[in-house]
Amino acid sequence: MHLLVTNCNTTASMTEEIVAGARAAASPGTTVTGLTPAWGPESAEGWLDSYLSAAAVLDTLRRYEGQCDAVVMAGFGEHGREGARELLGVPVVDITEAAAHLACLLGRRYAVITTLDRARGQIEDSLHTAGVFTNCSAVLGTGLGVLELGDDERTLDAFVAAAERAKESGAEVLVLGCAGMTGLQRAVGDKLGLPVVDGVAAAVKLAESLVSLGLTTSKAGGYAAPLPKRRLWGPPGA
Amino acid sequence: MHLLVTNCNTTASMTEEIVAGARAAASPGTTVTGLTPAWGPESAEGWLDSYLSAAAVLDTLRRYEGQCDAVVMAGFGEHGREGARELLGVPVVDITEAAAHLACLLGRRYAVITTLDRARGQIEDSLHTAGVFTNCSAVLGTGLGVLELGDDERTLDAFVAAAERAKESGAEVLVLGCAGMTGLQRAVGDKLGLPVVDGVAAAVKLAESLVSLGLTTSKAGGYAAPLPKRRLWGPPGA
Amino acid sequence: MHLLVTNCNTTASMTEEIVAGARAAASPGTTVTGLTPAWGPESAEGWLDSYLSAAAVLDTLRRYEGQCDAVVMAGFGEHGREGARELLGVPVVDITEAAAHLACLLGRRYAVITTLDRARGQIEDSLHTAGVFTNCSAVLGTGLGVLELGDDERTLDAFVAAAERAKESGAEVLVLGCAGMTGLQRAVGDKLGLPVVDGVAAAVKLAESLVSLGLTTSKAGGYAAPLPKRRLWGPPGA
Amino acid sequence: MHLLVTNCNTTASMTEEIVAGARAAASPGTTVTGLTPAWGPESAEGWLDSYLSAAAVLDTLRRYEGQCDAVVMAGFGEHGREGARELLGVPVVDITEAAAHLACLLGRRYAVITTLDRARGQIEDSLHTAGVFTNCSAVLGTGLGVLELGDDERTLDAFVAAAERAKESGAEVLVLGCAGMTGLQRAVGDKLGLPVVDGVAAAVKLAESLVSLGLTTSKAGGYAAPLPKRRLWGPPGA
Amino acid sequence: MHLLVTNCNTTASMTEEIVAGARAAASPGTTVTGLTPAWGPESAEGWLDSYLSAAAVLDTLRRYEGQCDAVVMAGFGEHGREGARELLGVPVVDITEAAAHLACLLGRRYAVITTLDRARGQIEDSLHTAGVFTNCSAVLGTGLGVLELGDDERTLDAFVAAAERAKESGAEVLVLGCAGMTGLQRAVGDKLGLPVVDGVAAAVKLAESLVSLGLTTSKAGGYAAPLPKRRLWGPPGA
Amino acid sequence: MHLLVTNCNTTASMTEEIVAGARAAASPGTTVTGLTPAWGPESAEGWLDSYLSAAAVLDTLRRYEGQCDAVVMAGFGEHGREGARELLGVPVVDITEAAAHLACLLGRRYAVITTLDRARGQIEDSLHTAGVFTNCSAVLGTGLGVLELGDDERTLDAFVAAAERAKESGAEVLVLGCAGMTGLQRAVGDKLGLPVVDGVAAAVKLAESLVSLGLTTSKAGGYAAPLPKRRLWGPPGA
Repeated sequence: MHLLVTNCNTTASMTEEIVAGARAAASPGTTVTGLTPAWGPESAEGWLDSYLSAAAVLDTLRRYEGQCDAVVMAGFGEHGREGARELLGVPVVDITEAAAHLACLLGRRYAVITTLDRARGQIEDSLHTAGVFTNCSAVLGTGLGVLELGDDERTLDAFVAAAERAKESGAEVLVLGCAGMTGLQRAVGDKLGLPVVDGVAAAVKLAESLVSLGLTTSKAGGYAAPLPKRRLWGPPGA
Repeated sequence: MHLLVTNCNTTASMTEEIVAGARAAASPGTTVTGLTPAWGPESAEGWLDSYLSAAAVLDTLRRYEGQCDAVVMAGFGEHGREGARELLGVPVVDITEAAAHLACLLGRRYAVITTLDRARGQIEDSLHTAGVFTNCSAVLGTGLGVLELGDDERTLDAFVAAAERAKESGAEVLVLGCAGMTGLQRAVGDKLGLPVVDGVAAAVKLAESLVSLGLTTSKAGGYAAPLPKRRLWGPPGA
Repeated sequence: MHLLVTNCNTTASMTEEIVAGARAAASPGTTVTGLTPAWGPESAEGWLDSYLSAAAVLDTLRRYEGQCDAVVMAGFGEHGREGARELLGVPVVDITEAAAHLACLLGRRYAVITTLDRARGQIEDSLHTAGVFTNCSAVLGTGLGVLELGDDERTLDAFVAAAERAKESGAEVLVLGCAGMTGLQRAVGDKLGLPVVDGVAAAVKLAESLVSLGLTTSKAGGYAAPLPKRRLWGPPGA
Repeated sequence: MHLLVTNCNTTASMTEEIVAGARAAASPGTTVTGLTPAWGPESAEGWLDSYLSAAAVLDTLRRYEGQCDAVVMAGFGEHGREGARELLGVPVVDITEAAAHLACLLGRRYAVITTLDRARGQIEDSLHTAGVFTNCSAVLGTGLGVLELGDDERTLDAFVAAAERAKESGAEVLVLGCAGMTGLQRAVGDKLGLPVVDGVAAAVKLAESLVSLGLTTSKAGGYAAPLPKRRLWGPPGA
Repeated sequence: MHLLVTNCNTTASMTEEIVAGARAAASPGTTVTGLTPAWGPESAEGWLDSYLSAAAVLDTLRRYEGQCDAVVMAGFGEHGREGARELLGVPVVDITEAAAHLACLLGRRYAVITTLDRARGQIEDSLHTAGVFTNCSAVLGTGLGVLELGDDERTLDAFVAAAERAKESGAEVLVLGCAGMTGLQRAVGDKLGLPVVDGVAAAVKLAESLVSLGLTTSKAGGYAAPLPKRRLWGPPGA
Repeated sequence: MHLLVTNCNTTASMTEEIVAGARAAASPGTTVTGLTPAWGPESAEGWLDSYLSAAAVLDTLRRYEGQCDAVVMAGFGEHGREGARELLGVPVVDITEAAAHLACLLGRRYAVITTLDRARGQIEDSLHTAGVFTNCSAVLGTGLGVLELGDDERTLDAFVAAAERAKESGAEVLVLGCAGMTGLQRAVGDKLGLPVVDGVAAAVKLAESLVSLGLTTSKAGGYAAPLPKRRLWGPPGA
């Protein structure tokens, strides 16, 4: 099985980390290709970045000429998921919804811990439209920007502080609310005594699940293929 | 007062119709400038179109060098609204939410009548995140594409047929669910005996209201200005 | 255009303040007439006051013999709105819903700051039935009674203290939850760095908007004209 | 135990029917006094009637000089309930909520069948604010006015037709949505094979229950006694 | 009238306390029989206990050969209620829902105070499916186990501490969230100045109400009698 | 990896079908053991059956002495899931929630098609408490009992008829609402042009996903291990 994993920003080193996380989660026999959009924001931290990212990721998928069995969209809380479902015949799994789906199986309430507070609204909306917001007790920020994240003390401390607030909100499970946090789940989980779900890993498993069951996006409703028409994918003469 | 009205697609004739509708609704002393994105879809009919449109509209706003007091985003159910709120210091009003806000004042339940069934999901999500979905009894399609709409018998018949279903759902007020329907409200309202709200006109009045009260987007939370960073607004060498 | 603004209580000085606020918000060419009910409570602070006020305001509107193009009901959280919509052919806008409608356009979540804690329940119910409660993060009391409000230090301090709690609840926009607070919005907004919406001003703009678009209350459902029947508007021999 | 039952309109014959229904439901040892407001509408059928009725009923309760152990408010979907809870030290039970409370115990979903369609909105709002709307599958009108109701074929037929629609909505229990329907429950229940709950009877039992358990309205929050102030209960010189 | 009251656990002394509480609440002429399951957990404190208890209580009801007019299920937050409604022709009232129904009549928001924190989830789910969760502001634990409860200082102190948090959540009424708390309501209510509802007493009154009105479970939908089939009520050779 | 799959009833032939379905879905290297409860109902079709089944399945899991890496609970809409999560250290996935989780990834709205109408309520409640009810447009019955199901014309016809109603409700994806329907998904999907999700297969993939990611039930809240106490798992001397 071959999975395509799309980063939501133009930072290739982050694509590499995401791909490493995806490969660590993938089953034997699953290969993973990472895609970095050739345009868009260098990190997605807000609504404007998110919409720019959505178009760039869709353009990247549209231009991709290889084969794949499913697509994982690795932008936590970023837009675009439904557009990819229209565009493609293969299953599309977004890491936001994926993490929430698995988290629901592990405890009665889950919380998402993300980077900047400003990302909270997008994540809440994304979980709501994905149909998995009911059991979310909180979406909390650590105050760290996407490009500041690291597997170091400062990141860990900020995460643990947010996790305490998550517990007070009733959360029994945590979700890493940024693709750049991939790899943190074990360190954090050990420290906190709570299951910690990473969206990239979750999405890889859900994508593999759909493919192996022969399931793909319904084309009988809102995700039917885009209508043929004139579309310009970027400013003329850019 | 000067309003900027952004079409969500690249079809200049549609921008003209929208601007005509906006001018008809505007107060004396309000001037209206229409913007047509230089890229994006020729009509927005689905999620992929919507995300592409969002990026193109944000790019258009970003490049705009003139002055304005408020922005009206004239894509019914299309994405991008929150990004424009981040980007700009002036108020931003989207025609989807605007129509719903006024409709709530006119009856206990309202329904939206749009073009293709496939647009329904986006509209529902857009109303929900705008905080005005509670009193919406239905979002219904006429089966007509955006570029098929006209002020003719066929459009009217399709609209009236959908309106009957809207009434059964409990609606007491109708909303025209496409910027391209602007102008239809009077013909339809007379035929149906129900108030019919056009989003472009509604958004113009709400934008004027905010400006004249000195109110603008809160920058204290999720709509703070985008962080400075490297962003590429289109494919390299496009 | 001529707007009728109804105070919800019998205190004429408060009507004057409300009318002053309404006139400050009105467009050139809009005239404003204030109405003070001849009966009811001297201030509305609770459910009993609210129901008494509703009947008195409806009686006042029923007896009004002048012309008007729209009615603004200036009792924050008070009942009666739907009755006036039945009674009248012109649009009716209540300051509670009006403030919330505009607030939704300015930020992702808004909070209402009102007088006594006991008023909170009515306001929540009023926002819910108006269809704009979804994005309300909190309704908070300052502990000041309606007739204690002034444009002085004490009122400001109480408001600012409540505003801090509002921010913690996620609010990015504030709503002044009492007609008697009209005038406070600028002082408070400057101090807090948040947009502050006054219901009277908001309702004036929304009423003007509806009138200028030729929109009025739907008579096709629950707001059809009251059935003809015997009604006694007050105790016999009172 | 002594119960006060307030009609919501000025029609004394309807008070008599309600009192008869209340007495039929009351336990041995419970006495029932009916109160007919001296002012207000002759029947409550819409929002304006409802607000007028609320003030008149509160005035009636305020003037009542006798003793009572609890109050039953017999206007289905009418306003005023929370005001009476402020005003009085004894428990107050409204027939709308009462019927819903008992209906919830008898099946997974209940429906309300009322008089005119225009009453539906008020009933839905009343059930929502009472906290018992979750399991309501529909509120349906029979098309009969309050004063047209009788224990005859026409009323029964209209009720049975509405009941069929109720079943389709998933209802397993029916609620009589008008105090004037009291007495109909047995005839209708036999015909339909569904439990039919009458609000007057339900409210009598709930009022008796609260009294016998020594429970009464909480005065620690929104239902604290009305603040002392000047209130005029009707137009001067009326 | 004869009520059957089922304890949810095998501890006979707790059945006795529950029966004493039920008798104290019952009307003259109502007799109460307590049933202690012959199997199941000695106290129900968690999901596993709750499901085991549900089967044991249903088995107990199934084997009961006496007559009764209604059943009260005295396990707060425990499962089984809907199964008993299928099994029996007489009304079934569960103490969880019963307390909430009466609490809704006494204030705008109620809170439940229970034993261990781990019971909170079950109680929330039980209130939701019963249709009375809307006005619940919080479900809080005291940290005391079911078998640790007593009418002593420690229980009272833990309850009062939880009650303070309940008030902060907006509660105006408290519900005792454990059958073993029966008897505590008066001591606690006096100390707190809030109405305190005991589920056993509430359920007795609601059961009496249904019986005296001739109302019983709808058999027209989900609570139709169980289908005849082979069922083994316990392990073979146990 | 070794999965334990528990049937919810005592019918061994149904366990075999379920195990066959589970094995068909399992990855290479995953072994599947089926467990048939030694007691309980021969088929679970209603609330009483469901509670009896829950206790029997928990007893079966408790007595199981072998090793396993995860448990799949194969009773659609049946109770017990949370009890197994308390009891066990390994992940527990219920087929009801599992099907819904995957369905959410394939379309904007999904519908469940089950056996008898009486099962609908349980399924709705189960999806709600699992946190995945938001995007469910309908739960519909075919009118066929659990033991009447087969891979034949009659079953297929009943399913297809229900599927038409599902589409009208807005569903883009279907869920097989009974473990006994396993195997039907391909025949039905081809006929309808919609993705059809089987809960057994879905649960196998989700269980494998959790195990391979090293994730298991949170023990930090409501699913902590059951407290040690005296429990009798069946009637004495049965």
